[in-house]
Amino acid sequence: MAEALPGEEVRVWPDVGDGREVSHALIWRPQPGLFDALPNLRLVCATGAGVDHFLADPTYPRHVPLVRQIDAGFARRMADYVLAWTLFHHRDGRHYQASQHSRQWQPRAMRDAGDITVGILGLGQMGGLAADVLAHHGFCVRGWVQRPQARPGVTVDVGPEGLTQLLAASDILVNLLPLTPATRGILCRDLFQRLKPGAVLINVGRGPHLVEADLIPALDHGHLSAAVLDVFQTEPLPEDHAFWGDPRITITPHVSSSASETTVARHFADAIRRERAGEPLFGLVDLTRGY
Amino acid sequence: MAEALPGEEVRVWPDVGDGREVSHALIWRPQPGLFDALPNLRLVCATGAGVDHFLADPTYPRHVPLVRQIDAGFARRMADYVLAWTLFHHRDGRHYQASQHSRQWQPRAMRDAGDITVGILGLGQMGGLAADVLAHHGFCVRGWVQRPQARPGVTVDVGPEGLTQLLAASDILVNLLPLTPATRGILCRDLFQRLKPGAVLINVGRGPHLVEADLIPALDHGHLSAAVLDVFQTEPLPEDHAFWGDPRITITPHVSSSASETTVARHFADAIRRERAGEPLFGLVDLTRGY
Repeated sequence: MAEALPGEEVRVWPDVGDGREVSHALIWRPQPGLFDALPNLRLVCATGAGVDHFLADPTYPRHVPLVRQIDAGFARRMADYVLAWTLFHHRDGRHYQASQHSRQWQPRAMRDAGDITVGILGLGQMGGLAADVLAHHGFCVRGWVQRPQARPGVTVDVGPEGLTQLLAASDILVNLLPLTPATRGILCRDLFQRLKPGAVLINVGRGPHLVEADLIPALDHGHLSAAVLDVFQTEPLPEDHAFWGDPRITITPHVSSSASETTVARHFADAIRRERAGEPLFGLVDLTRGY
Repeated sequence: MAEALPGEEVRVWPDVGDGREVSHALIWRPQPGLFDALPNLRLVCATGAGVDHFLADPTYPRHVPLVRQIDAGFARRMADYVLAWTLFHHRDGRHYQASQHSRQWQPRAMRDAGDITVGILGLGQMGGLAADVLAHHGFCVRGWVQRPQARPGVTVDVGPEGLTQLLAASDILVNLLPLTPATRGILCRDLFQRLKPGAVLINVGRGPHLVEADLIPALDHGHLSAAVLDVFQTEPLPEDHAFWGDPRITITPHVSSSASETTVARHFADAIRRERAGEPLFGLVDLTRGY
């Protein structure tokens, strides 16, 4: 940030001196009491893709604009992760790994990417690029949104009825929604029952999107055949958690994407300059919508 | 074939009646003595991507044109397989599966696709499309060929010096060469020693491209860190083969691609029509080159 903002004074928490002198802050997860210590903020930059940590903090000063990162590489790495695990399941990776374990030569009939429907919950910065990459690769892609959007090559399902259609059609379901009161716990028993039986869940949104107690029963009942989880209610995932030992579940330790420090620093330096100059801000969060 | 060739008589082996009446044949692996039983062939259509089975048969009538399948879907499914396992290794799939097995949360630093060099041996129908798909996806792609070719977005390495350059640069090495006397056993100790240390091998060519006895030593010495094998000297892979139990090796049962029966039937029906009409043939094999 010091490099990206020549002439500005950059202080690193907790060595910020008199918090009343801090006008702009770059924050990932605000710790309790942070905002009380910084009463004169004019802009907050959130370094993660989601801003649920800020919205969950009752002390967050609602009049202060919140800007989130814009990093095409972040969305690109996320789309890579989604494509990697979509292809892994599409090409029967789990079946062949299990066959190898039992030394069995068990070829399965092959399907084309076009025979597979991938449903993506959320077509924002992350979900939109994932949808485009999967569609370009030949998968049949549907995306679920609250408000209609034009996205060539992707079937856009809108609102509650749209969700029902998407769930019934999806062989693979990818969650890339923002975490808001409306989406918390959306991956639950009710939703799993409406899926095409035997679907694969890929959760790269947030841990609290998933009602964790509902996952293994959904696998047991065949609503789901497998799950790939990158995010959890508690991270790191506790060592005694049931997910670790279930062979139907693939666990990755919150590595579906990561930001480029250089890109993020440049974006926020620009946001700070714009705020000072009274220019429009890119990546401004709508605090009412929550994303 | 009967549907694709209305008016022609189609006989299915071994019920071919008088073999002298057979003028055109569709064959995957010729069994010993087959060609002696069919002395009046005017055209042979090979249903696999490689034609090494024909060239290895000393009774194959060299004056009879050999045509191999042209099926864009076959190459596409092959490219899918290569992309799936390239992404799996690029995104540390093996590491995270092992970490899950020991219930450990061990995130690794992430690399972009552009930081990874994939070297592809062979830029024919299969290797060429795999190279294009990987390059489009952002990987740094090199391809090895005998004769220079223009391929935008791919570094083309030619001849013996080119192979040395490609091996030294490759994080992931994909074999998609035809099997000929010149390429048999090419994946051997000498080649592995010239690789970038810790490379991943993906063999989707033929089993005999790999000197199987050299693979585990190359993994032990760190020339390779992992291998994905779809083809083997003996298929199905014998139950007591050392590859099954090595966690660094991923085994799939010759499923990297498969042909669409409809597409193949149409292509060969067209080839038979062309042969009868004296028109040029598509997919004609150069028996001297072996592909």
